[in-house]
Amino acid sequence: MTITRFMPPHRILMGPGPSDISPQVLQALSRPTIGHLDPLFIGMMDELKQLLKYAFQTENEFTIALSAPGSAGMEACFVNLIEAGDKVIVCRNGVFGERMRENVVRAGGQAITVDDEWGSPVSVAKVKQALIDHPEVKIVAFVHAETSTGALSDAQAIGTLAKEYGALTIVDAVTSLGGVPLKVDEWQLDAVYSGSQKCLSCTPGLAPLTFSAKAIEKIQNRRTPVQSWFLDQSLVLGYWSGEGKRSYHHTAPVNSLYALHEALLMLHQEGLENAWYRHQQMHEKLKTGLEKLGFTFVVDQAYRLPQLNAIYVPEGIDEANVRRHLLETYNLEIGAGLGVLAGKAWRIGLMGYGARQENVALCLRALEESMIE
Amino acid sequence: MTITRFMPPHRILMGPGPSDISPQVLQALSRPTIGHLDPLFIGMMDELKQLLKYAFQTENEFTIALSAPGSAGMEACFVNLIEAGDKVIVCRNGVFGERMRENVVRAGGQAITVDDEWGSPVSVAKVKQALIDHPEVKIVAFVHAETSTGALSDAQAIGTLAKEYGALTIVDAVTSLGGVPLKVDEWQLDAVYSGSQKCLSCTPGLAPLTFSAKAIEKIQNRRTPVQSWFLDQSLVLGYWSGEGKRSYHHTAPVNSLYALHEALLMLHQEGLENAWYRHQQMHEKLKTGLEKLGFTFVVDQAYRLPQLNAIYVPEGIDEANVRRHLLETYNLEIGAGLGVLAGKAWRIGLMGYGARQENVALCLRALEESMIE
Repeated sequence: MTITRFMPPHRILMGPGPSDISPQVLQALSRPTIGHLDPLFIGMMDELKQLLKYAFQTENEFTIALSAPGSAGMEACFVNLIEAGDKVIVCRNGVFGERMRENVVRAGGQAITVDDEWGSPVSVAKVKQALIDHPEVKIVAFVHAETSTGALSDAQAIGTLAKEYGALTIVDAVTSLGGVPLKVDEWQLDAVYSGSQKCLSCTPGLAPLTFSAKAIEKIQNRRTPVQSWFLDQSLVLGYWSGEGKRSYHHTAPVNSLYALHEALLMLHQEGLENAWYRHQQMHEKLKTGLEKLGFTFVVDQAYRLPQLNAIYVPEGIDEANVRRHLLETYNLEIGAGLGVLAGKAWRIGLMGYGARQENVALCLRALEESMIE
Repeated sequence: MTITRFMPPHRILMGPGPSDISPQVLQALSRPTIGHLDPLFIGMMDELKQLLKYAFQTENEFTIALSAPGSAGMEACFVNLIEAGDKVIVCRNGVFGERMRENVVRAGGQAITVDDEWGSPVSVAKVKQALIDHPEVKIVAFVHAETSTGALSDAQAIGTLAKEYGALTIVDAVTSLGGVPLKVDEWQLDAVYSGSQKCLSCTPGLAPLTFSAKAIEKIQNRRTPVQSWFLDQSLVLGYWSGEGKRSYHHTAPVNSLYALHEALLMLHQEGLENAWYRHQQMHEKLKTGLEKLGFTFVVDQAYRLPQLNAIYVPEGIDEANVRRHLLETYNLEIGAGLGVLAGKAWRIGLMGYGARQENVALCLRALEESMIE
């Protein structure tokens, strides 16, 4: 075996995530590991909860970072909140809505799907109709910001609607958290998960997660145990809170949590509103440049995510070739299309620390040069 | 909110894990993040698989690092290998055997428990009797190195026995991998999981995992889908292997995998046999010192783990007070007792990079001083 130390190059990450990471966050990651039950670590976790509450705009006591990627955050919501036979409205307008449906089925639930075109937002009217048609539904699940298309759905409207019909909401905020307004308490959302590697610009591997008091109540009144031991949040709760004594559940990913603490601290220092504004500004700049180059967007302006720009690949262009060229020549990563958009679109991310002037300028120039060659 | 940057002190980690981490590994952790589908990253993953095969002593094609802690590695084995109604022999001689039983039940299986005293190894004779009594059993699950007591069980004997009776094995090698001999192929073990934060001395958060061809065959012949989407290894397989094209499953914890690559490279450079020998040597030294101080071990010499030394707290000593003193005065962490040993024992880890002369010397001296004061 002739394996040597792995020295990655410095890539500029403008795909759908992981996003560019600030040197500060990478530095935090490599600070000395301490024990997961060390009093200093417990103190850091308490701060992390406060910072997460700020990012989510919530006072939910249960606000943590799950020790696994966003997909596990999604699964945690479903396996904790639904029991065998439960009916769940699942909105599908891209890859992640379908993944939600898959989760419902695997947890023994029944999925009632509300479908919209890829690139469109979730239709609030259709959700309302589904709630009328299925009064027994107790949960509405939808994706706030579809990473596969770049469409933003109206989480506030769906949240309010669900409450009217007495249903809880499960919300995928993987790509929205930190990039566009997300107000968990004001919008009355119940179970919201995200990922560390998008607009928070932390390393991948953690899933910020918040449950409302109503969601916790539902978990506490379950008739059957959660099918997953690792994702059973009633057990995890004993580690993330509790006066004085914390009970051991699993060994927390100590260093990754240092990095998330640092990334959230940067977000807090910048201010959420400023971060949203910066994403919007960088998007405008990118958009102007892309349109000048003749590109068209997959998603209409009205519900287009600033942090994820899906554009059609021009006819006659070998899209994989262009991406390879960008990576090899400029160390620039942009994303391929996913699902029905595979081969047809590129996804350009402007997430967190990646939403900077120099990235926009490089991306435009490199794309222009690549298309000519 | 007045939260500032978190600067952890440099602790000497001699508890049950996370263990001391080499500066090299921490450095690897903070290298620039690249995309989880970047060709260079895919190349790194291929090397990682080779390094993991070496550590596990296996040629199993399915040898990966799961993107979550060891507990999720445990759950991955159970949810992939058992289906509703399946009977599983679960050996319990500490905390983690009981956690295995919990996993069997939550996956819809039926657990047949084989119990041994805490501090004793799993009785091979009892396992044999259980296999005779329950010929319909298709899986035997046991913990190779019980982290809660420091007892080593005979994985080779249990593996051979299970094969004789046509059963697969699920083996917890969280604390054994890299610290004591573990030979997956030679011992005919089928599904073996570990953790990154023990004798591999990597940061916590990853679960090395290997499945034999027989285990993969069982997964491929399932009648029902795996209840977890995130842990469904038939989906994960598409990301960790496949000629040329890798399919997206979830975003891999890129930086944590850099660190594991580095930690495994260090293990390979030292050589497995040398690492095992070093753990044994450091244990001998610690043992001599501890016995001189009057301490007695929870586990008999014959099946005592060198990397996890559980000793009884002397009568009249406030154990939490001593641990606090060690932490505050010497930045030294040792572990508390877990489960039935809570308040009665300490667990001193000599794992991976932590198994060094300077750590043994410090621990003995600090314990001696603490007991006098």
